[in-house]
Amino acid sequence: MKLYDSRLAPNPRRTRIFLAEKGISVPTEQVDMMAMQHKTPEYTAINPLQRMPALVLDDGTVIAESIAICRYFEVLQPEPPLFGVGAKEIALVEMWNRRCEINYFANVAAVFRHLHPAMKELEVPQIPAYAEAMRPRAIWFLELLEKELATREFIAGDRFSVADITALVAYDFMKPSRIVMPENLDNVKRWHAAVSARPSAKA
Amino acid sequence: MKLYDSRLAPNPRRTRIFLAEKGISVPTEQVDMMAMQHKTPEYTAINPLQRMPALVLDDGTVIAESIAICRYFEVLQPEPPLFGVGAKEIALVEMWNRRCEINYFANVAAVFRHLHPAMKELEVPQIPAYAEAMRPRAIWFLELLEKELATREFIAGDRFSVADITALVAYDFMKPSRIVMPENLDNVKRWHAAVSARPSAKA
Repeated sequence: MKLYDSRLAPNPRRTRIFLAEKGISVPTEQVDMMAMQHKTPEYTAINPLQRMPALVLDDGTVIAESIAICRYFEVLQPEPPLFGVGAKEIALVEMWNRRCEINYFANVAAVFRHLHPAMKELEVPQIPAYAEAMRPRAIWFLELLEKELATREFIAGDRFSVADITALVAYDFMKPSRIVMPENLDNVKRWHAAVSARPSAKA
Repeated sequence: MKLYDSRLAPNPRRTRIFLAEKGISVPTEQVDMMAMQHKTPEYTAINPLQRMPALVLDDGTVIAESIAICRYFEVLQPEPPLFGVGAKEIALVEMWNRRCEINYFANVAAVFRHLHPAMKELEVPQIPAYAEAMRPRAIWFLELLEKELATREFIAGDRFSVADITALVAYDFMKPSRIVMPENLDNVKRWHAAVSARPSAKA
């Protein structure tokens, strides 16, 4: 088994934090996206979509998409549960992970991809107007989270879950995306301090 | 239990097809997005993100996000399995469902949202340049699917799954998005004819 990982990209970090929370270690090979290594014929043979990360199983099966890799390990090693337990919690974790992806992570990433000079050759064409339209949507979602986190410890409930991982990675990616965190979101800041203090956050 | 549904929108259709495949029927209330009913205070109290669909359980819990609703019913009624069985198949279904969402469905929807006159008041601001940049990516993914579907019957393997539902809904949404299906994708056309012939496709 081998995990193809990229240290600086946000999606591979989701998988690394997930594995750290599970206490699972996997042999890893770095693929430097800034050096376009994910566009080489060698990596394209592994993942034709040229995206990171990807997990290659011993039988040669390739599992791409960070959350698909996480789900593979959730089935192999259910403890601690990071996708919920029982129909209702599983659905709420899925709901919040997707809400965080669609309304927060994707918008933070859009600002980075369509504005940052470093992305000029990776996001063609860059459309700055799209970045500027998505920036307030990321902030709007943080304001919604502020109200939600007044009622509970973690994003999807009283248990740390993959939704917290997605939101943590999106939050930290606001810095390279140059999105300023609003001052008055105390519940979001409390939550961010707590999840950042977990050893897995260093992954 | 009540499902808040919108007949014309693509995401609610994913949930309806999923329920039809399971043979599950749920009391439903229509929310007319073109009449902005998803922006009313009443619906905002159910889903503050003002998105469709949403499922309200008997205990008042709200499950939003089409795939979260699907996953709720997958746990309650595992047969027929639509998210896979066992770690590897579960991971591959997740991978293909996400690939179809990110590279196909989201791009088809972007073309609709950012170009169609009917979306002028729902997608503010519309950014036509973004639609035009995403249109070839939707086509590119169909060309990738063409190669994949040469080797197997369904998107994620030999079993119909939620990935087929996502791809079917995206394919059919190309028409209102005015994306022309390339002529030479015979495997994709064979797949589309097969999944469209299932009774669930009428949902």
